Amino acid sequence: MNKLKTVKLSLIALCGLFISITQAQEPLLVEKQRFQMDSYTTVGGETIKDVHVGWEAYGELNEAKDNVILVTHFFSGNSHAAGKYSADDPQPGYWDAIIGPGKAIDTNKYYVVSVDSLVNAYPNLPSVITTGPASTNPATGKPYGLTFPVVTIRDFVNVQKALLESKGIGKLHAVIGASMGSLQAIEWASTYPEWVERMVSVIGSAKMDAWTIAGLEMWSQAIKLDPNWRGGDYYDSEAPLNGVTMAQAMITHGAMHPEIFNQSAPSQSTLPNSGLDTVDNQLPAAQWLFDSSRARAPLADANHILYLVRANQLFIAGHQETLEKGLANLTAKSLFLPSSNDLLLMPYMAEQANSVLNNMGKDSELEYIEGPWGHLNGIFSIQSKADKLAKFLNQ
Amino acid sequence: MNKLKTVKLSLIALCGLFISITQAQEPLLVEKQRFQMDSYTTVGGETIKDVHVGWEAYGELNEAKDNVILVTHFFSGNSHAAGKYSADDPQPGYWDAIIGPGKAIDTNKYYVVSVDSLVNAYPNLPSVITTGPASTNPATGKPYGLTFPVVTIRDFVNVQKALLESKGIGKLHAVIGASMGSLQAIEWASTYPEWVERMVSVIGSAKMDAWTIAGLEMWSQAIKLDPNWRGGDYYDSEAPLNGVTMAQAMITHGAMHPEIFNQSAPSQSTLPNSGLDTVDNQLPAAQWLFDSSRARAPLADANHILYLVRANQLFIAGHQETLEKGLANLTAKSLFLPSSNDLLLMPYMAEQANSVLNNMGKDSELEYIEGPWGHLNGIFSIQSKADKLAKFLNQ
Repeated sequence: MNKLKTVKLSLIALCGLFISITQAQEPLLVEKQRFQMDSYTTVGGETIKDVHVGWEAYGELNEAKDNVILVTHFFSGNSHAAGKYSADDPQPGYWDAIIGPGKAIDTNKYYVVSVDSLVNAYPNLPSVITTGPASTNPATGKPYGLTFPVVTIRDFVNVQKALLESKGIGKLHAVIGASMGSLQAIEWASTYPEWVERMVSVIGSAKMDAWTIAGLEMWSQAIKLDPNWRGGDYYDSEAPLNGVTMAQAMITHGAMHPEIFNQSAPSQSTLPNSGLDTVDNQLPAAQWLFDSSRARAPLADANHILYLVRANQLFIAGHQETLEKGLANLTAKSLFLPSSNDLLLMPYMAEQANSVLNNMGKDSELEYIEGPWGHLNGIFSIQSKADKLAKFLNQ
Repeated sequence: MNKLKTVKLSLIALCGLFISITQAQEPLLVEKQRFQMDSYTTVGGETIKDVHVGWEAYGELNEAKDNVILVTHFFSGNSHAAGKYSADDPQPGYWDAIIGPGKAIDTNKYYVVSVDSLVNAYPNLPSVITTGPASTNPATGKPYGLTFPVVTIRDFVNVQKALLESKGIGKLHAVIGASMGSLQAIEWASTYPEWVERMVSVIGSAKMDAWTIAGLEMWSQAIKLDPNWRGGDYYDSEAPLNGVTMAQAMITHGAMHPEIFNQSAPSQSTLPNSGLDTVDNQLPAAQWLFDSSRARAPLADANHILYLVRANQLFIAGHQETLEKGLANLTAKSLFLPSSNDLLLMPYMAEQANSVLNNMGKDSELEYIEGPWGHLNGIFSIQSKADKLAKFLNQ
């Protein structure tokens, strides 16, 4: 494999994060902070004691506390949306291209807050603080495993709301998120309309459909097939890393369009020169994908992925039977930015949500992100929407 | 689940076959026949003793033996392309809509032959005759398992050629296949151009790319994750049916477009009424898909699926480094029929092959199949191309 290809994949794979293109300018230095709640009661009515989540902020909160933009993160991500942890940190946060001084989300004007989700997929990453099945249950002194209550996108939102309220904040200039972050942004605007003035959904959806629910299920089933999963009770034994590796490989594969994947992955040698020795190996393109997934698998927690999948599968804006009902109370100006060649959350999902809002006479618009990346255009091609975003946020 | 949905899924799932719409007319009665070779030497140079494959034929071979149309089958399919095995057989072969007396592939004019592939995915289906890792190795008296040699699309073609030669046939009026069948049709026309007058590729590709190789790998990895797979040595123990179930679920999911999947699958109940009890279950849409996959898993063989995946992953027409070289010797009139909303073998693949042929001045054309089915338009929407096919075959 050539070096360029290795570097390209590392960009995608490193620590399970999607990393934005490094900017050739002074880095914004940031630090992860911790928010703690003595107890939190889920949508399902279960109480979790001693909840911790990490968070970051960029810019300054003004006196009126009305310049807050909340950034909600995607499935494999966390609250590190912009800046670097130190001057020699090799990579900035995933949306550093659009968050910072003078950038589309201008930290000279806005106080930008981002929060690690509950049941974050990568609890073993040093920069992630989250509460989920791998956390110690204070009642038993042991990890929760599958006794941790099922949580929803609304629960992620409610924890973010508690954090903001603890700072005396009661209004969001905007909420913006990509992919699973978009689900949170839409849930914010649907459920707490009095908070949200502007909502931006990047590569997102306002409702999971059967095809997407079934597709997400594959990520869970890969973990459940691994004998080391042991019904979720593996914290005293070997972790189900083969299952996690496959789940991550499926996520990366589904998030990339063939156009970029084929440019990045090694191509197959010509028959009969290779591939005829055994089926118990992988061809170069598959091995390239699985090797990078395997390298970052120890940073993830298998049960956390299952909980995160379920939170996504259950999503419909506002927890109503229909999108019309779920979006009825939304008052935010809305902007949808689907990726035109997205294979994971296809553009029809954002188109549907935008149409429902327009049909109800609400202020919503849609623009496509173009690029070779498929779903990942929401991260790697976001710079192309910088002007649009700046205009939308400043209107 | 309502009855219509059950019936719809049964149509897809039954016996691992894709079944065409039943025609309201007198059925063509057919029988499976057996072709045997004392030994066959693979592209990789390995000799397999006592090879058996099933085959079917519709219509009559003329005296000149020049009215033969070979139909090559898709991944989950077999040689039952048309007709019924008995008058009360509930379902005809998968392309019954276009093969029969007076149909697009007119059995009043043509002798239509179809052959079960080597390493067929469903060796436990009573109507399939195939040789593969589940077959008994005459040298040991035990199943081959992973000692069976890796085979390629060219090997499938070579066995078909031996069968045709055994009947004194030396020329094909046409070869036509869908999906993996398309790979075989292209390989026929590329490698044995003197045989092939017309080639029809339905929902196909002339070359696997890295993205598709990695996507196919997921089907194999699901099987390899199942502890019952035991490195392929499971014939004296429990079969890895969980892995096979997941592989089949992925195949069906990938072969269907969201448009038809969402019409067919049950929708999710509204929160907080369901889905919050545990992550150790499946939501209705996923359960619907997995239940049907589980029901037909015992008919498949896990190792056969691994070998079939590898044959597909290794494919490039003519076994050359480039499509230009691989297709250089092709002389057949060619017709490509990609499905416009195919998510498995996307239309760019057929477009690329057609362009390469046109750029070399060869006689090739392309038309899109439209319909809600995604990849499966190649089966369920094929009737929409009946006139085009008839014209192409009779020109």
